[in-house]
Amino acid sequence: MERFFQVTSLEKVFACRKQFAVKGAETVPLFDAPGRILARDIVPEAEYPDFNRATMDGFAVRAETTFGASEANPVYLTVKANIAMGEVPTDAIGPGEAMGISTGGMLPEGADSVVMREYATWIDERTIEVVHSTAPAANIITIGEDMAAGNVLFSRGKRIRAQDCGALAALGVNPVPVFQKPAVGIISTGDEIVPVDHSPGTGQIRDVNTYTLAAMIENAGGTARTYGIIGDDAEKLRNTCFRALQEVDIVLISGGSSVGTRDMTIEAIGHLPDAAILVHGIPLSPGKPTILARSGKIQIWGLPGQITSAMVVFDRVVRPFIEYTGGQDMAPGGRDIRIPALLTRNIASATGRTDFIRTRLTEGENGWKADPILGKSGLINTMLRADGLIEIDKNTEGMEKGSLVHVILLS
Amino acid sequence: MERFFQVTSLEKVFACRKQFAVKGAETVPLFDAPGRILARDIVPEAEYPDFNRATMDGFAVRAETTFGASEANPVYLTVKANIAMGEVPTDAIGPGEAMGISTGGMLPEGADSVVMREYATWIDERTIEVVHSTAPAANIITIGEDMAAGNVLFSRGKRIRAQDCGALAALGVNPVPVFQKPAVGIISTGDEIVPVDHSPGTGQIRDVNTYTLAAMIENAGGTARTYGIIGDDAEKLRNTCFRALQEVDIVLISGGSSVGTRDMTIEAIGHLPDAAILVHGIPLSPGKPTILARSGKIQIWGLPGQITSAMVVFDRVVRPFIEYTGGQDMAPGGRDIRIPALLTRNIASATGRTDFIRTRLTEGENGWKADPILGKSGLINTMLRADGLIEIDKNTEGMEKGSLVHVILLS
Repeated sequence: MERFFQVTSLEKVFACRKQFAVKGAETVPLFDAPGRILARDIVPEAEYPDFNRATMDGFAVRAETTFGASEANPVYLTVKANIAMGEVPTDAIGPGEAMGISTGGMLPEGADSVVMREYATWIDERTIEVVHSTAPAANIITIGEDMAAGNVLFSRGKRIRAQDCGALAALGVNPVPVFQKPAVGIISTGDEIVPVDHSPGTGQIRDVNTYTLAAMIENAGGTARTYGIIGDDAEKLRNTCFRALQEVDIVLISGGSSVGTRDMTIEAIGHLPDAAILVHGIPLSPGKPTILARSGKIQIWGLPGQITSAMVVFDRVVRPFIEYTGGQDMAPGGRDIRIPALLTRNIASATGRTDFIRTRLTEGENGWKADPILGKSGLINTMLRADGLIEIDKNTEGMEKGSLVHVILLS
Repeated sequence: MERFFQVTSLEKVFACRKQFAVKGAETVPLFDAPGRILARDIVPEAEYPDFNRATMDGFAVRAETTFGASEANPVYLTVKANIAMGEVPTDAIGPGEAMGISTGGMLPEGADSVVMREYATWIDERTIEVVHSTAPAANIITIGEDMAAGNVLFSRGKRIRAQDCGALAALGVNPVPVFQKPAVGIISTGDEIVPVDHSPGTGQIRDVNTYTLAAMIENAGGTARTYGIIGDDAEKLRNTCFRALQEVDIVLISGGSSVGTRDMTIEAIGHLPDAAILVHGIPLSPGKPTILARSGKIQIWGLPGQITSAMVVFDRVVRPFIEYTGGQDMAPGGRDIRIPALLTRNIASATGRTDFIRTRLTEGENGWKADPILGKSGLINTMLRADGLIEIDKNTEGMEKGSLVHVILLS
């Protein structure tokens, strides 16, 4: 089976995504839209707002009326009415006139700005004295100033945040067209693994990977499905893969790239319909033996069994594929938040592969410090202590204490 | 009503949280635990792992047997057996002996390390030649090395991440004890506001705030409940508040601190059982007129109607209260991710209040640049373009172009 073990560059691995399908669209109520991915461009059909709207409490005026107003030389305006919220002013104003208005109110015809209440004093029941001049469009939002009709506000593929929900609400986009979530199946392998609710015998451990991967799948915008634990039983793996192919878009075989199960994984994939191994080996540490295959349009990943390696491979390689399938096509790392920080110790790295070093971030007097985590790579606690990863390029041999690094935050 | 309008320092506002109750505990399946808050300390009852575990494929040995081994002076070991995954080795090894082992396998009695497969060569069916010496504990995880029995692994109040789920799975913590989520009710006010599915008449706008706040509540670990839109109708506001008090832990009156509804909000709160206004005014821009009140143990917030101000107040002031109620007690800003960046233009600020400036982040050649967003404060699009906020301290008058700032990421 070693003939398959051809290390493929990260760029070529990522290019393989084009062999897979992107999910179709569905609609969800606006309340359920946060975190989902827009399935079409959002283009306001009308100007927003569609009326000139006050952003301050005060008096709607024609700005030119106030030009030159000062404490020494106040301007006197006749207040014709008070504009009720949500209503269209029944009258227009002319030179020398004003109307009372509240934040959010609609400006009457003839008015082009609002004099703030603080700058006006009642002289009698119908007259105010204004001591500041007001510029046209001051203290108002003009028609279309917030969101212009016909302009693309949000592009297809955008992830919806809280404030985006506000804009969608303003435009009445409810329900919201979004991509369906990719369904991602997890098959856990290994004769030493027992379900989480079992009491492991000596030499056994509970299934850590299914739970970690499920949480990471949800973070990546997918829906996790679990297929239990397959011992080192080739036929059971094949049958479970076959079942998963009917139900999900992406199959993760946890432990499927580990030495004990690698050959079994390759063999099981070989028995699936329209199957091909696309990648076997990525110049990545940890995570080199990762497998990517397909059966028809379904992705199949063989991931390391060591959870620390599996997390790095998932975050750096698998996540961009889940995002692609879910309608977000961006380069690996395109969504990373990278925090500049100074390295607290030397780190070694081999050339020819990209290294990801687990790192803590601590705040020092001169900004962030990146503190690479010591400890054996298989220890779960190294991931518990990690805030992020330092990426060391394949052409770099290592980095010296005091270097500036950019720590990729782990979500 | 102006007598209430006493601006309270941010620290004093935050101290008010102690007047409110923290939610009780519940249990959720481990699959539903990501993002939830632990309701008790997690302390492993047993060592993890509870056996010495290989982290490499190779041969379990007694390390001292290999001391001095080299290409010129190899050591020969007798391989007694191959250890099956998940099983307890049936035999011990002595000096000069080894057993085949895979990653995750259990070391036999007498072995204290693993010789990597690459460093061993089969000489005959029972004998390997080892050309590197191996240190004790090399390539294994020793008993308790990952998570020690009796040590606090996670503290009550911790937010559960993907990798934490893995550790909980390893320990068999399923279901997981978590704090109940705070229920947060949203009452939208304003005569000009119509429901999102209505077609607003001229002078009216759709309800932006309910949807934005609901998404922010969920991000903060709460559950949003909506109570519709109350026009400027004091009795309806009072009745709706009263209903919400029976059903939620926190009531947000959106627009309740705006000039048009402020007095109505204060009056409605005055009619609620065991009510008190705790805060009316915070030295914060935007968001100064924010109201915090209580009725019994229920929080009531009056928030600005302008969504841009409401978002800042929510993120900086309300969110820490929701987190507190949900079991996460940390200082405001305690969870912030702050990105160091260079300011691209001067920004002005008044002393005596903390200013939050909406900002874009762009990556320049020398790291991040913080680009304050221009545009009128009421524009939704200023929040759409914002990646984060710059905080300008109450004692600072403004900041100059080129200054180092720390941009708080908006989630």
